[in-house]
This record gives sequence, C-alpha cells and structure tokens, in this order.
Amino acid sequence: MFDELHEECGVFGCYQCQDAASLTYYGLHSLQHRGQEASGIAVASHGKIQVFKGKGLTVDVFSREDLDQLEGDLSVGHVRYSTAGGQEYENIQPIAAEGYQGDIALVHNGQIVNDRELRKELEAAGAIFQGTSDSEVILHLIEKQTGTLEERVKKAAQRLEGAFSILVMKDDTLIAFRDPHGLRPLSYARNRQGWIISSESCAFEVMGIYRHTDVLPGQMVVFKDGLPRSSFYTPKRDHHLCAMEYIYFARPDSVIEDKNVHALCKETGRLLARQDKDLQADVVIGCPDSSLSAAMGYAEEADLPFQYGLVKNRFVTRTFIQPTQAMRDRGVRMKLSPVREVIDGRRVVLIDDSIVRGTTSRRIVNLLREAGAKEVHVRIASPIITSPCFYGVDTSTKKELIGAQMTLEEMKDYIQADTLYFLSPEDLQNAAEPSALCMACFTGEYCTDLFSHQEQLEN
Amino acid sequence: MFDELHEECGVFGCYQCQDAASLTYYGLHSLQHRGQEASGIAVASHGKIQVFKGKGLTVDVFSREDLDQLEGDLSVGHVRYSTAGGQEYENIQPIAAEGYQGDIALVHNGQIVNDRELRKELEAAGAIFQGTSDSEVILHLIEKQTGTLEERVKKAAQRLEGAFSILVMKDDTLIAFRDPHGLRPLSYARNRQGWIISSESCAFEVMGIYRHTDVLPGQMVVFKDGLPRSSFYTPKRDHHLCAMEYIYFARPDSVIEDKNVHALCKETGRLLARQDKDLQADVVIGCPDSSLSAAMGYAEEADLPFQYGLVKNRFVTRTFIQPTQAMRDRGVRMKLSPVREVIDGRRVVLIDDSIVRGTTSRRIVNLLREAGAKEVHVRIASPIITSPCFYGVDTSTKKELIGAQMTLEEMKDYIQADTLYFLSPEDLQNAAEPSALCMACFTGEYCTDLFSHQEQLEN
Amino acid sequence: MFDELHEECGVFGCYQCQDAASLTYYGLHSLQHRGQEASGIAVASHGKIQVFKGKGLTVDVFSREDLDQLEGDLSVGHVRYSTAGGQEYENIQPIAAEGYQGDIALVHNGQIVNDRELRKELEAAGAIFQGTSDSEVILHLIEKQTGTLEERVKKAAQRLEGAFSILVMKDDTLIAFRDPHGLRPLSYARNRQGWIISSESCAFEVMGIYRHTDVLPGQMVVFKDGLPRSSFYTPKRDHHLCAMEYIYFARPDSVIEDKNVHALCKETGRLLARQDKDLQADVVIGCPDSSLSAAMGYAEEADLPFQYGLVKNRFVTRTFIQPTQAMRDRGVRMKLSPVREVIDGRRVVLIDDSIVRGTTSRRIVNLLREAGAKEVHVRIASPIITSPCFYGVDTSTKKELIGAQMTLEEMKDYIQADTLYFLSPEDLQNAAEPSALCMACFTGEYCTDLFSHQEQLEN
Amino acid sequence: MFDELHEECGVFGCYQCQDAASLTYYGLHSLQHRGQEASGIAVASHGKIQVFKGKGLTVDVFSREDLDQLEGDLSVGHVRYSTAGGQEYENIQPIAAEGYQGDIALVHNGQIVNDRELRKELEAAGAIFQGTSDSEVILHLIEKQTGTLEERVKKAAQRLEGAFSILVMKDDTLIAFRDPHGLRPLSYARNRQGWIISSESCAFEVMGIYRHTDVLPGQMVVFKDGLPRSSFYTPKRDHHLCAMEYIYFARPDSVIEDKNVHALCKETGRLLARQDKDLQADVVIGCPDSSLSAAMGYAEEADLPFQYGLVKNRFVTRTFIQPTQAMRDRGVRMKLSPVREVIDGRRVVLIDDSIVRGTTSRRIVNLLREAGAKEVHVRIASPIITSPCFYGVDTSTKKELIGAQMTLEEMKDYIQADTLYFLSPEDLQNAAEPSALCMACFTGEYCTDLFSHQEQLEN
Repeated sequence: MFDELHEECGVFGCYQCQDAASLTYYGLHSLQHRGQEASGIAVASHGKIQVFKGKGLTVDVFSREDLDQLEGDLSVGHVRYSTAGGQEYENIQPIAAEGYQGDIALVHNGQIVNDRELRKELEAAGAIFQGTSDSEVILHLIEKQTGTLEERVKKAAQRLEGAFSILVMKDDTLIAFRDPHGLRPLSYARNRQGWIISSESCAFEVMGIYRHTDVLPGQMVVFKDGLPRSSFYTPKRDHHLCAMEYIYFARPDSVIEDKNVHALCKETGRLLARQDKDLQADVVIGCPDSSLSAAMGYAEEADLPFQYGLVKNRFVTRTFIQPTQAMRDRGVRMKLSPVREVIDGRRVVLIDDSIVRGTTSRRIVNLLREAGAKEVHVRIASPIITSPCFYGVDTSTKKELIGAQMTLEEMKDYIQADTLYFLSPEDLQNAAEPSALCMACFTGEYCTDLFSHQEQLEN
Repeated sequence: MFDELHEECGVFGCYQCQDAASLTYYGLHSLQHRGQEASGIAVASHGKIQVFKGKGLTVDVFSREDLDQLEGDLSVGHVRYSTAGGQEYENIQPIAAEGYQGDIALVHNGQIVNDRELRKELEAAGAIFQGTSDSEVILHLIEKQTGTLEERVKKAAQRLEGAFSILVMKDDTLIAFRDPHGLRPLSYARNRQGWIISSESCAFEVMGIYRHTDVLPGQMVVFKDGLPRSSFYTPKRDHHLCAMEYIYFARPDSVIEDKNVHALCKETGRLLARQDKDLQADVVIGCPDSSLSAAMGYAEEADLPFQYGLVKNRFVTRTFIQPTQAMRDRGVRMKLSPVREVIDGRRVVLIDDSIVRGTTSRRIVNLLREAGAKEVHVRIASPIITSPCFYGVDTSTKKELIGAQMTLEEMKDYIQADTLYFLSPEDLQNAAEPSALCMACFTGEYCTDLFSHQEQLEN
Repeated sequence: MFDELHEECGVFGCYQCQDAASLTYYGLHSLQHRGQEASGIAVASHGKIQVFKGKGLTVDVFSREDLDQLEGDLSVGHVRYSTAGGQEYENIQPIAAEGYQGDIALVHNGQIVNDRELRKELEAAGAIFQGTSDSEVILHLIEKQTGTLEERVKKAAQRLEGAFSILVMKDDTLIAFRDPHGLRPLSYARNRQGWIISSESCAFEVMGIYRHTDVLPGQMVVFKDGLPRSSFYTPKRDHHLCAMEYIYFARPDSVIEDKNVHALCKETGRLLARQDKDLQADVVIGCPDSSLSAAMGYAEEADLPFQYGLVKNRFVTRTFIQPTQAMRDRGVRMKLSPVREVIDGRRVVLIDDSIVRGTTSRRIVNLLREAGAKEVHVRIASPIITSPCFYGVDTSTKKELIGAQMTLEEMKDYIQADTLYFLSPEDLQNAAEPSALCMACFTGEYCTDLFSHQEQLEN
Repeated sequence: MFDELHEECGVFGCYQCQDAASLTYYGLHSLQHRGQEASGIAVASHGKIQVFKGKGLTVDVFSREDLDQLEGDLSVGHVRYSTAGGQEYENIQPIAAEGYQGDIALVHNGQIVNDRELRKELEAAGAIFQGTSDSEVILHLIEKQTGTLEERVKKAAQRLEGAFSILVMKDDTLIAFRDPHGLRPLSYARNRQGWIISSESCAFEVMGIYRHTDVLPGQMVVFKDGLPRSSFYTPKRDHHLCAMEYIYFARPDSVIEDKNVHALCKETGRLLARQDKDLQADVVIGCPDSSLSAAMGYAEEADLPFQYGLVKNRFVTRTFIQPTQAMRDRGVRMKLSPVREVIDGRRVVLIDDSIVRGTTSRRIVNLLREAGAKEVHVRIASPIITSPCFYGVDTSTKKELIGAQMTLEEMKDYIQADTLYFLSPEDLQNAAEPSALCMACFTGEYCTDLFSHQEQLEN
C-alpha cells in the first residue's frame, strides 16, 4: 500500500573505481526508492576518509562541487528512510570515526535486534554514543575488537543479531557482509578495474553491468589487494530473505537471489488469479507503481484486460501541503486519480501489494466507486500482515495492523470492497523459489530470538 | 521521447470558492505535468490582488503560511515550463498590474504569433515592458482598450493570433477565453457555490468533480454576479485542438473535448497494431509514462503480452547531476532501465509517443539490445514530426527534427531499430473524432497566418 | 534614536569603468547604511541591460558568479530601505524595461510628491504598472516623452516634484539628475578612464578617490561620448538639502556639499555645549554610532571627558528574535549595553541625534540609571521634530511624533531625563553653512507645494 | 589588529531558568564577538538532552520555532570560531552523547595542550572519535571515569592541561570549571530562581543582572539541588589570565576578574601616553572598535583631541566578496575608511591594540597618508607579540609574527610609520592588577609544560 510501508536504507560501495564519489552518487540515485530522507557518501584516499551527507534526496544533497571534492577510488554510500523529524544529523549515514589509529566508515541496511544489549555492554566498557542509531553501535563493536580489520569485522559480525547488510571501509580495504539469514539483499559486481557493491542490482544496470554475485547469508566479502575474497564468518546460517523485498521494496528491474522482481510479482498475480476462477469481472487494474506487475500477471491468467485505471501524481514531495480535513470533506484529494473511462460501469479487480492499516485501501475503493465502478474486487499480492517486523520494515505495531485485529470478512467490510482475497503464504513461497523467505510479518515466526524484545511484541 | 517535448503552461482559476488559494494550489499540483519551472497564484479580494510566485514545483514554491495569507475567493494560477535559465522573475505568471484604476491579473497557456507586432504597436503608443513574455503584451493590450472589463477583453482577444487559453481577473470578475482554433484546452466546472476553471479536467477530479464544460474555440466565459455567461468574441472560428495534447501532454485521466486521453491513446495503439498484422513478436512494451496507454492498446489488438519492460527512475529532479561524457562512455546512464527478464531473448515491440531528434529513441533501442532483445520494432503512436510548432510546443527548429531531415528508412537506421512505423495522420484524426486536430507539426499546415514568421520557419 | 529613522535608498553608477558590476558592488556596500532591505545592480552592454537584484544586504544578494555574469562597463545600482514585508520583488531597484526600442534602467533615491497625479495621468494614457513604487512612474514618464534620451529625461524631470537623485542608463549613456531643491545628495568623480556616481562620497573613498563634484540642485549630468556634460533642466532652483542627511543618515567620512559629516556633527555638539554653560556633569557619552561625533564636540567644548558609555551589539541582523514581553519584563534587552564603570555614580550627559517617538530615548535613560547614573542630561544634536517628512524619511505621522504632541518639559518627563535640550534650528543652519538646509520636519515649512497631500498632513 | 586575531569560543549556561533555550540564545548573542562561525544550544529536560546547532551567527542558526522546541530549564550554549572550512558539523559544540546510561552535553572555551596524548590513551582503551575537536576528548575523558558526575568531572579535570572554561550538563546538574591558570574567563550570576553562567559578564548585563562571581582558577562550581557549591579540584593553581582577553577579545562593557575591560584599556592608553611626553601631535585616533578605549585614554593623558578618524563598514559579513588583486591595485578597499577632515594635514597618533603580521597596520598607515596625514605615529596598547599561543588564540606561527622576526626599528619601517612604540609588559601587568596575566605571547614564558609540543614551537 503505497504510502504505508517504509524500509530503512540502501547501501552502495566502490572498490578501486575511478570517480568513486560520482559512481556512488549514481548508485544511490538508483537506490533512492529504498529511502528518501537522507543521503551520504564517504570516500577514502590515502587512509583519510571524507564524509558528506545531509537530509533529502541524493540529487538535493550533492552538488557537482561536492562530488569533485570527494576524491578517491574507495567509497561507501547510503540512502536512508527515517521515521521521525527533528535534528538528527548524527544518525545520517555513512557513520565515520576519525582518529590517530585511522579513519573508518560504515553503512548499514537493516535492523539489529540486540542493539540495546550491545550498547549497554559497550557503554559499560567506556564507549560513548553521539547518536541513537544501531549503526554507531556496530562501528563501536568493530573498533573494540582486536586484530586486523578483517578479524575485527568478523568478531563483530558474530555478535550482531537481526537483519544487516553492511559495508565497512578503512585504508584501502572494503568489507561487505550480510546477516546469517540474509534478510536484506546485497550483491557485488565487476566494474572495469574495480568492483561495486549494492543493495539491489538495479544500481549495477544503470552502469551497464548485467552480471552480479550475491553476498550469501553469513558471508563476508573482503575487497583488498585488487580482489574480492569471500568467507563465512559463522557456521549458523539460516536463509530467510525478507519477503517484502520482492513484494514492495525492490525495483521491478532488480534481480535478487537470481529472481527478477517484476517476474516474481507477476507470478504472484497469476497465482491469485488461479484461485479466482469464478469471479466475473471486466477489467484488472493495479495500484501504481508497486502493484502493476502483479496486476499484469492476474490479467494475463484471468484473460481480462489490464488497464490504466489509477494515475499517480508524480510531483508529491516532502513539502507537499496536505489538504485540511475541511478540504477533504469537500472532496479534495491528491496522489491517486481514477481514469473514469476505464472504471465507469465496470466490475473492477484491483490488485494491491499489501494492506497495513487499511485506510488507504478504503480510500482507493471509494475513489473507484465514485468513478463509477459497479463492483470492486480487491486482491492482495501477499499474505495478511499479522505481526510487526523487527528487521527493518516500518509496519507499525500490532494494534495498528488491520490483519491482526480483524477477520478477512471484517477487513473486506472495512475497506468497503465487494470481495477481498490475499495470496497464501504457500503461494508466495512457491513464487520465490529457490529463495527461502522470511514471512514473520505474515506468520509471526521470527528467524531470530526475540525474547529480549518481548515487550515490544506485546504492544 | 519522454524528455524531448515541452509545453509552456497550465492554468487554473477559482470563482467564488472558499479558500481559493488552497484550491488553486491543488489544482496547479494536478497540472504540474504541464510545467515544472515556475508556479504562481494571484488572489483577488475587495479589488486588491495579491500575487505569490516563484521558480520550481508548486509544492516547493508555496508554504502553508503563503497560502493562508492569500485570502479571497477569486484566484488564477499558473504552472510554467520555460526554456532558458537566468533571472527572469518578470516572466513568471500570473502577471499582474497594480494601479489606481484597479488591480488586474492574468494567466496564459499558449503562444501568441503576432506578439512582436502587438508589442511594437503598444510601445509606439507609450507602453513599456519589464519582461519578455507575450503574457505581458496581452495584459497591456487589454488595459489599452476602453469600456468594461468584458468589452476590453473582447477587443483584445480579437487582436490576438495564435494559441491561447487565458484567464483574466479583476475586482469580482473572472473571464476565461480560448483562441478561435481551440489549440489549447480549457474547461470549467461547478464547485459547490462557485466555479473552477482548468487547462485539464484532471484538476477537477482531484476535487471530486466529474462533470465539466469546455470553453469553446473563440468563446469567452464571463464569471460575474455568481454565474458564468458565455459568448463568442469572434465569428471566425476554426476548430483545431493541438494533437500533442492527447499524444503527449495531457494526463491519462483527463477528458479533453469529451474524449478521455488514455482511451484515445489506447486507440492509437490499436490502430498501429492493425497495420502490423504480419509482425512476429513476443512482447509489447511502452516507454514510461506517456506511451503506456498506446502500448496497452497495441498489445490487446495484436494479442501479445503487454509487459513492464522499462523502469523510469522517479527521483530525477532539476538538481540531478548529469553523468559526464566519460561516465556515459563507461556505461553510466540514468532515468530509464530495462527489465532484463522481460527483454532478454525476446522480439520486442517498443511503443513510443513521438520522435523529435531521435537521440533518445536510439538510446532506448540500444538499452533494449544490451538487455538482450533479439529484435526491436519501434512503433510511434503519432505521425512523423516534420515541422516546428508555433503554438506553444517546444519542438525545436526544423533542422533538429529528424523527421524533417530523413526518410523513414534512414530514421529506422539512425535509431538502430529493426523496423519503424508511425501512425498515419488519418488514423490519428479518426481516433480523436469528433475533435478536429491541429496537425501542423506533422503536415506543415498551420491554422493561422504565419507570413510574418516566415523567417523562423526557414531556420 | 538609532532605530527609529529610516531613509529610502542609496544609488551608485559607473560610466566606462572596467568591471562595472564589481565596482558597483563595492560602491553599494559602502552605501549600505542607507538601506539594508534590498540591493540590485543593472549592467548595460551593447544596448542590452541585465538586472540582478534581491532582498537583503549587498553581500548576501550577490555571489562572485553573479557579478562575473554581469559584463559591461556601464552600470547603475541601488540599496533600498522599505517599510513593509510581503512579496514586492517588483519594487526592488534598479527598475528596468526591456523592449524592441531598447533597454533602459533607472535607480532613484528620494520620494516623488506628485506621484499619484503622474500615475493617474500615465494610466489615463494607457500605461500599466506592475509595482507600487514611484520609480516605476518615473520610468514611464521618461519613456512617454519624445526625442533623444537626454531630451526625454529633461522633460520628465521637469514634471517631477519632491526629492529625487536619479540615475538613468540606456545604450552607452548614463544621466544623473537631482531635484531642484537638492534634497538628496548626489556626486560624481573621475575613476581612471571613466566616471563613478554616488549618493555619498564615502563610496568614492573606498576606491581611493578623494575628489568629487556635486550634481547641483536642478542639474542633470549626461555621461556620453566619454565625458560628463552638465546643464540645468529647470530655472526654478531653490537649495534645501535634507538636514537629516548630516544629522543621521550619512557616514561620518562622507563629504556632502563640501562639508564633512563628522565635522558638522561635532560642531552641533559644540553649539549645544555653548548653551549649557551652567550644567554640572562628570562625563559625556554618545548614543552609538550616529551620535558619537556630536558627543565628541560637546565634550571638547564643555571640557568634560568623552567616554565609551554605551556598547552596541554588532550582530543584530534581520533574523534576530526579539525578546518576548515576558523576557523584557524579566530584564532581557539587546543591542545597547551600558559600561557601568563609566556610568556608575556619575552625572552623565547623553548626546543623541534626534527623538522621534521617544520610546528608545526613555529606554536608554533607564538603562543608564540602572547602571548607576546619578543624573542623566539628554542633549539632542538637532531641533525638535514636529512635522512628518514627505521627501523620503520615514518619520511616521504627526500623531506619533513626540515633538508634535508634547512640550519640552513633558518630553523631558516622558523620557525620564533630568534635563533635556535640543539644538536650535538657527544653530543647525549655522553649522551647515554654506549648505541651505530643508528643515521641514523641524519647522513645518516644506519647500514644495504639498496642497495635494494635505490629507496626509492632517493624519 | 582587527582582522588578525581570533579566539575559539564563548560559553553560556542556565541552571533552573525558565525558557533556558531563549535565555541562552540572548546570552550567546551577546558573546557573539567571541566566535561567529557556529552556534549551538543543548537543553536538558527529565534526563534527555536535545541539541540544536549549526554554522553561522546565533541569529542565523536559530528560529523562534527551534527555541520553542528546546524545552527545559537547564542548558549550555556555545559560539565558535574555527579556522578551517569544510564540512565539520561533528566539531560544532555543544558536544553531546546520548545513551542508556544517560545523556550528557558539554561546551568548552580554550585549548587542551595534552589533547593528543589523551586521545591516544582513550583510543587505546577502545574509544572512537567522530570529530577532531579536543572537546570530544574531554567528553570521553569524563565518561571514562567512575563515580558520580561530580567525581568524574573532577578526575577528568585533573588530567587536562591547557586553557579551559567548561560547562558540563547531565540530568539536573550543571558543572562549571576552569583551568588551574584561569586562562579563559568564566563567571556566574543569580537570575531570579536560577543561575546563569557565562564567559563574559556582558551576557549578564543584557539580562539586567549587574553582580556576578568569577569561577576561580582550578575551581569547579556544581549547580545541583538549587544551589551552586564550589570547590577546588586541584591544589596546583597558578593564576594567569590571558592578557588578550582584556586587550582584544572581551567587550568593553564586560568586567573580568573585577576589572572593567574599557577601563583597563583606557589605562593602557594613558600609560602609553606617559612614555610619549615629547611627541608633537595634533590628533589621536583609534582603530575601531577594539582600540577606541585605549585611544581615549591616550588622548586624555596627552591632552590631545580624540577624534573619529577611521570609519568601519558594519556590513562586512562572511559572504563579502573580497576585491581581486587587480581591484586592490586600482585602489579598491573595504572595511576601514579614513575621515579626511580629521586626518588631512595633521600629525596623527594612531592607537592600535596589537600587531600580528603587520600587513593590516601597514595598510592603515598608508590609508592615513593617502588621506593627508603629515605624520603617523603608531602606538600599540600591548607588548610585542613574539611567540605563538597554545591556549586558544589563533596567532599563527612564529614565522608569521612580525614581532618575532624584526626589530622595533624594522617593524616601524615595515608598517611605514613615523614612529612606533609598544606598551611594556610591566605597564600591561600594572594596568591589570590584581589579575595575574598570561603574557606568553609577549615573553615566551608559558604557564604549562609544553615539552610535548616542542615540535610546534619550532615551526
């Protein structure tokens, strides 16, 4: 549901690439859908690290001059989604430390579940923190270890629990590592003399690179002496890629774990349609942009016309002034508009990717009815969300999740649809083969121990 | 083609509407696709007019406080595309004049072809101009006439040649008028106690209003004493709506002259497919966003799968740093990415809306080949552009128009497609029935006398 | 008094000077004390005029790049004080007109008293105005005349009544002219190959130029063909330089009509002291910065120590957040602080330049008492202001002028001084010899016909 | 020498004051002369600390809304001068740490000379640093200690060497402490229910408070449970207030260690004059603003007229575009202008506060000669600077100090004065009684061990 789910980040890095800062800029730009709140790049040169970061889109944070000043062929970058406002420069990534023993910088996508315990432990040992992010904890954890950078990262990685895809950079080395469940994606690719690392493959493609390698769950890849060397930092690996990466976050042109996102989503649409044999409908529409692939799949399978039924206003930015309630009451709305020609007098199948609180779904169903829809059949290309996420997806608390509070019938009534169906967890897993998915938000079965977070679960 | 054509403006106005400034903000926001360079609103109250305008998107120009200060129930607003940079605040609309005889404000979409003659004539009569826009000329022309506002606007309108959809506001009156050819669209609709006027109907729909009336070619509609009264200011009317309004500019959910834009575009796709009976292909894709409707129509008619073959990066803004040539040479590109899964190994039909210089088309064809397309068949959902436009579309000069310089075969080779076909002018006119279209850019037959502009034609 | 009086402007121009835009920048910077609200520069080159202007200090409006783009050796510039907020870009100077008959630009310091009549007359002849400034009226008036630029300016100047020092620029000519009373200063000086023109001579001195020539009342100086040629455009000349130019506005290092500002102010202090033979006091202090010269003169004549008794905070800018009333009640104040060491236990003579509403004077007297002053004797280095100004000084209406509403005794009580005396009009005129001063604000005798403004006088 | 010396900071704090953030804003505003590069405020409430900081003047960094959001009655604030540009948000103060064991914030004026050793020691113990400032080292040092906040601050303070006046804030406690030499000033005062702490007393006076208490060298004052309790954290105390605080940095209305700054400076002027019995001169002028007090003293003692001989442009801000060398060669200069009337044909005594590199002095002497001075006698109200400062004054290296490289005679010739004399160290010490001054920059005798900094001394 296009304005209800948010993830935390995208990461990008360069190893031995000419104009690393500029490449990172383009890389982050193509990962911008993963976070629009802040953007940053750190570049290493001769052991010194320069960081430039700020709030806003990558295109707004950096000027040509900024990029030109960031000289070096080793870099890490980050785009960030963050929940709250306020002044929190300290939490914007990359997070870097400067000191006599050498500069180090880090970017992180995911969420550490034992963040509090680690923070307490580090504070007890004398560490002090300037921000509130778990990324600063990771940096401290690495710095606290002994040995080479590689050894320190390995020891630190073993202590982390949760979801993480991390790039660490120091001197002339870049290390990429991913949590043992592989909850967040991470891949790397050859780029001429060097290598580039990215959360999603769409960032490689804008550089004309069509082959990449995944960092595997529990694996760390060390870029040093001109080459990547990979190894597993832990034997306890348990593959569970976050299902929402395919369903909602990733760009349709990305390939994650050898599966194209568009293709997978289209398949979920087909699977939905197979369970809908008896439905009489005239037209299939998708909620733009994230549900278009599934809608295409549904339409093909159901042999119904796929149509352009909802238009999204492309110019909604953070400064957009929301209509007042008085204006809404008088009918003013923004972002989505129906194409009456497509909707009026029709029995419409509306494909959406998910339902979180249900308010947006209800608004869209009503929009379609106002535009003359005779019937509105809502089909959701993922299972019912019943549990909060602790791995980096901002799905709110259990109390706000309509799927945790209502039956299917109640949900249907709430969103005022004629019928409502969801994809089954089995069908979703089938579509994702051979990737093993984390479906905790649908099933409540988390892949890490969350005992220490029990209080949060109860909210 | 998506970055090669530009139009000049969108206009929006309110008559006797509560919170006119805010409504205009939302109206302009939904017309933003017609111009992203500058935005402005003028509000009238008790004879005084306040103007607030600036460079950038509507959402960036106005704050809540700005809108709150613009009190009144009568307003005109404008979104603008402009070609050059530089400091040209004077040319941003609305354009207003303040004085003892009363404030007046005006917004204008289109292009006046006898602008120079009128300017010289006015200067000879003592007028001085602070900007270079034709809108300032129109304002002077109106002010120079005698009689009531209505009489003055009528006399001024009779002097104007070219394309124009104009709103003029003074005291408690708003007048909307459209050129005798109806080159640019303009409609109005009832909104509770008052009336709203807009370049496109999509602005009505975001306010929950689904019925509207077109201002007819050569007509002026005077909103005064609580009602609109329409009359024709000239007997010489000759209906020629700009074809590009349907093909490229207007939003798919808009209805122009009783024809839905999406439906018309889809029909152009069908008509293209009918001439392509023998083509063997695997998949149909459209260039986002303006060619998706046509692509859907082609796919339906040809019974081929319509697919999500090109992804557009939504985060390209004016501050985007273009890749250097060196970076381009190394493969870096932005904005459009292919979905390999859809393209690889396939015979692709690429639907685009038009070809101007051909460089973008060539880039896209190459992108598809890099992504593995076996064949690329380009189909253009409009006729070949062979002549420049003098009515507000920024199609460059004849020299830059590939359609004016090459044969179809040469164009095909230039863009490196396997085959290339265009929609015929007849098919386009058929799809647009009952609207009569201006097809000057395809045929060179202009609907106004351009003798005085001969020198421009020859460039 | 230091925050109660405001004037409207300073003007600066270059004729045949290399880097005219940069020179104008430095010129305006040294005239910044005459206006801090807005700043602008226009440069002419090959008949085309470029204008760059904006709100704020000269140093904030212009970047190096802006100056570099303003190529040409002919320029006019302006710093502006304006009363109200709001969006009034149209009123910022230079004001320019662009058109086929040639570009023209103008800057103006002063105030036209027959502004309304001229505006009405011009509007009746078809002119329309985009702003509300009298400068736009002047520009129209010039453009409406026939003949050469010189002839047109001459005819226009003859129609203007009030205070004005104006620079007009067109093609390769610059014309400087001053009202027949010489109310506002204007001078020019040789600068290497070319000439520079300025409101005050301090702008010449920062360029290392120590000789200058005044434009005389009723004179126009035409810079053309490499030379200035001066002539009188009217026989009705009646010399009345605004007294406030010396007392308050001009910089102490400026020389106006052969009289150094600092020297004249010091002399006013001496004259005040001569009338104060019996006063027993310990120390003389001045209100920074505009009253320091007078205070030095008083101290010398009275043979009392001149001391640094009040410190002014230099960092008060437009964004300064004024203390709330609650904070003021708790003692928080800003801008001026007393030096206790100088004040405590002393009988203090406080020299100030003028009293407008009296509130600031009262605040300062109280400040000195809080700091331990035994007695506070206030001496004002100008006569009592009893009448509003119509020539460009923002002295408020008669009702707000304490000098128009109270006797000397009442004023003394209001500001809570032990004694209070003002300079007599005769002494002021004596100090200014040979300049003839306009003392309308002290005497109510205006040097122009104000019949048409009678209604304003009555406020 | 008004553009050659820079200090690092001013600090301000509030304990149990209503609207602590706003009070701190006004406090910092009145300390702005101590640093104009950056400004920040931290406010504590219920154990949580909010920090708001940014580059620029206090008035530019904070809006009313920012202050309103900083709720609490406990605060610390900082204004900063910093040498280099670049992006160094991490170094702007207050510096704060957030964590589960509680938030803490700190502001610091001065310079720690054993900064490097402490940093290495802390890093060896696992600390990591995000910025390069010594303030971050102090924060780490405090956090690393054990015990109550008071005990931890005490232990940390004992480890610090150099100049420091520091405020630390945590929970509901504020601790102010000053180095054992008392190199930088620090005072506190009662403010209604609470207390305020400031680098200089001028910040108290703008709040209407005229009594204050100095924090003594080696003392710490703990504001807790509603009261200040003071104690010495070290027995090794050795009073040496930085002489430059009086001579150059502090505001004339401030009282430091019971001595008014203006009075002391005036006395230095008198002492200079006493050694100048035979000098024949006509006028005494001071270099604005920091040398005016001394000039007044000189004039009084020598019985010569004190005059307004140099005018300073008040509108020079950070964005000021420096004249190019070509422009300088053509005579363009800024900031200071001579008043010819005062200078021309006179034998001028010019009082300045110090000479660092000598270039500015030379420029001013030449300015006076251009303005007609017959003779220019330069008198410096402080001794010759021969050694760099390691306690927070940015006096450049020994190589750049003209006093370290030339004899008095050579200096006189270099600055092109007729005569040149300096105040003797003895006279300066006498004027400052009973304060004991650090005169290391004049004598090379540093009050702390600088062995470890020997390499810097040798530069």
